[in-house]
Amino acid sequence: MDTTLLSATLAAIRPLDGAAMAAARSLQDRLTKPAGSLGVLEELSVRLAGLAGACPPPVPQPATVAVFAGDHGVHAQGVTPWPQEVTAQMVANFLDGGAVINAFARQTGASLTVVDVGVATPLKPVRGLVAKNVRRGTRDFTVEPALTRAEAVAAVEVGIGVAGDLVDRGENLLVTGDMGIANTTPAAALIAAFTGADPAEATGRGTGVDDDTYAHKTSVVRAGLDLHRPDPADPLGVLAAVGGLEHAALTGLILGAAAARVPVLLDGVIAVSAALVAAALAPDAIGAMIAGHRSVEPGASAGLRHLGLEPLLDLGLRLGEGTGAMLAVPIVAGAVRVLHDVATFDSAGVSEK
Amino acid sequence: MDTTLLSATLAAIRPLDGAAMAAARSLQDRLTKPAGSLGVLEELSVRLAGLAGACPPPVPQPATVAVFAGDHGVHAQGVTPWPQEVTAQMVANFLDGGAVINAFARQTGASLTVVDVGVATPLKPVRGLVAKNVRRGTRDFTVEPALTRAEAVAAVEVGIGVAGDLVDRGENLLVTGDMGIANTTPAAALIAAFTGADPAEATGRGTGVDDDTYAHKTSVVRAGLDLHRPDPADPLGVLAAVGGLEHAALTGLILGAAAARVPVLLDGVIAVSAALVAAALAPDAIGAMIAGHRSVEPGASAGLRHLGLEPLLDLGLRLGEGTGAMLAVPIVAGAVRVLHDVATFDSAGVSEK
Repeated sequence: MDTTLLSATLAAIRPLDGAAMAAARSLQDRLTKPAGSLGVLEELSVRLAGLAGACPPPVPQPATVAVFAGDHGVHAQGVTPWPQEVTAQMVANFLDGGAVINAFARQTGASLTVVDVGVATPLKPVRGLVAKNVRRGTRDFTVEPALTRAEAVAAVEVGIGVAGDLVDRGENLLVTGDMGIANTTPAAALIAAFTGADPAEATGRGTGVDDDTYAHKTSVVRAGLDLHRPDPADPLGVLAAVGGLEHAALTGLILGAAAARVPVLLDGVIAVSAALVAAALAPDAIGAMIAGHRSVEPGASAGLRHLGLEPLLDLGLRLGEGTGAMLAVPIVAGAVRVLHDVATFDSAGVSEK
Repeated sequence: MDTTLLSATLAAIRPLDGAAMAAARSLQDRLTKPAGSLGVLEELSVRLAGLAGACPPPVPQPATVAVFAGDHGVHAQGVTPWPQEVTAQMVANFLDGGAVINAFARQTGASLTVVDVGVATPLKPVRGLVAKNVRRGTRDFTVEPALTRAEAVAAVEVGIGVAGDLVDRGENLLVTGDMGIANTTPAAALIAAFTGADPAEATGRGTGVDDDTYAHKTSVVRAGLDLHRPDPADPLGVLAAVGGLEHAALTGLILGAAAARVPVLLDGVIAVSAALVAAALAPDAIGAMIAGHRSVEPGASAGLRHLGLEPLLDLGLRLGEGTGAMLAVPIVAGAVRVLHDVATFDSAGVSEK
């Protein structure tokens, strides 16, 4: 198993730059506003300075959201009322510009990078689709590991590759997106494995399942964890046992962003589960993560707590696709723009208290 | 006292259009996403359809934030460590493009409409400044009414006039901004008067005053309310007794927006206090209001509760100027854009559960 790209990426991930952070804190205190009056945006700007190693850091203007699509063997267990073919149908919808993430991306002046990393149905090669299918859906993790370790690494490296391509194109903020019917089930399993949360705390209603399906879904997550007893000290082992291909690719996207010292905006529960894998592989990767929003999924909150991240938005979203992350883009950009554009008390001739 | 413009504006304010709201709810349920998965954005889109009387309503693309500036006689009571001249200095900073609201407006592709409705210092007529000074600062409300009733009406009508000009220019979302050293003190008094909250609940630390100044500020608010015993059934009387000129102008902006059936994004505690006056004058005006963010000021939360509004953002901001409202603009636009851009299950050929 070749893990050259993954190993090199992990080796490149380093802590935030303390000098740039100190410079940003000092600048924030001289700008024409009461100290601290921009709340969480001030510390966000400081972290982004630390990541870029420069004050001010570049104003993030993402041109794309990376949407990774995959299917799930555990769908056979009846964890969702939606048929599996919806994954492929929604990929077509993304490419046609008709999904909510397309509308939000358009609002932000961005487009979509749609990656087939694990869709079950063979997809026609169409313009705009990045064909990187590692496997046509995972195996059912209640029966056997969802992925071999080699497949998990291959999917992680798909994400690293996409991050590298985007950074090479000049992207200075990566945005996570996902599509995969049943994918909140492996996300819950990953979150339970890494945070130690009980499956009942980590599992949510996904697209909005009824009480019976919710109880069954929780028992499916518990069964997978009981079968594999995944060890969080072996993050790739956990990912292979109970993860998904889009989860793995998002882990890679996050690691690739961190290695390139570019921030990555996390969407909801799928992105958070991937972020837990990334943080387990390289704790300093957390420095590159921005939590876009608080998903309705309880596992997302458990995961964010574990990562020490506070989300920027809390709008009751539970859609995925990258929608919550995309809505947060202008806020991240605004936080950084303050360091570029705002006058100091001295320069503007404004009296201090 | 001529109240023709105010009376005509109040008479034009009508309830939301139920048919357009029903059409928007029905459309939301047919779009390619799980029903309800866009959380509060779905109901926001429904309200905006009801306001516009059309489904979909226009996508809000504000070109400006209306920043009203004024000074306050109650500054003499030592409610803030900032000198009064900072109001005029910050007006200059707005016009030079150097304040945080300029940075956030730029991020949204908007500019500022800066209105002198009550600055104490005479301001030079410079390009970009809308000179509508009603009075060079209010009187000290711990001694006498802050404004005469005629002054209060004149300032409200300044705001109605600005709203009318902006709507005539094609603006389809108005954004509230404010500047005025000491202006959280009259805001707290207005909020206490309209919500019935105790001054201790309605008063906050503004720009970040220390414990002693905070205690003193609360006692100043209490003293003003004790002196005037303002009657919430007489909204203009309350506004004249303990309000401010920028608060009054914002009341007018909100009423003007509601009369034109254009949504208005509320910023923090100053805008919320103005919204309470507007709602007391015309309860249906609430239908046009969107709460941009939850300010750190406790009075803002008390006022929003009274109005039945949930804010879109909660980022720990306490800056004013319109900053929290401006950050919410892309979210409002995104919520509406969904109704325009997203495919239905039928049109996209996506299976339902």
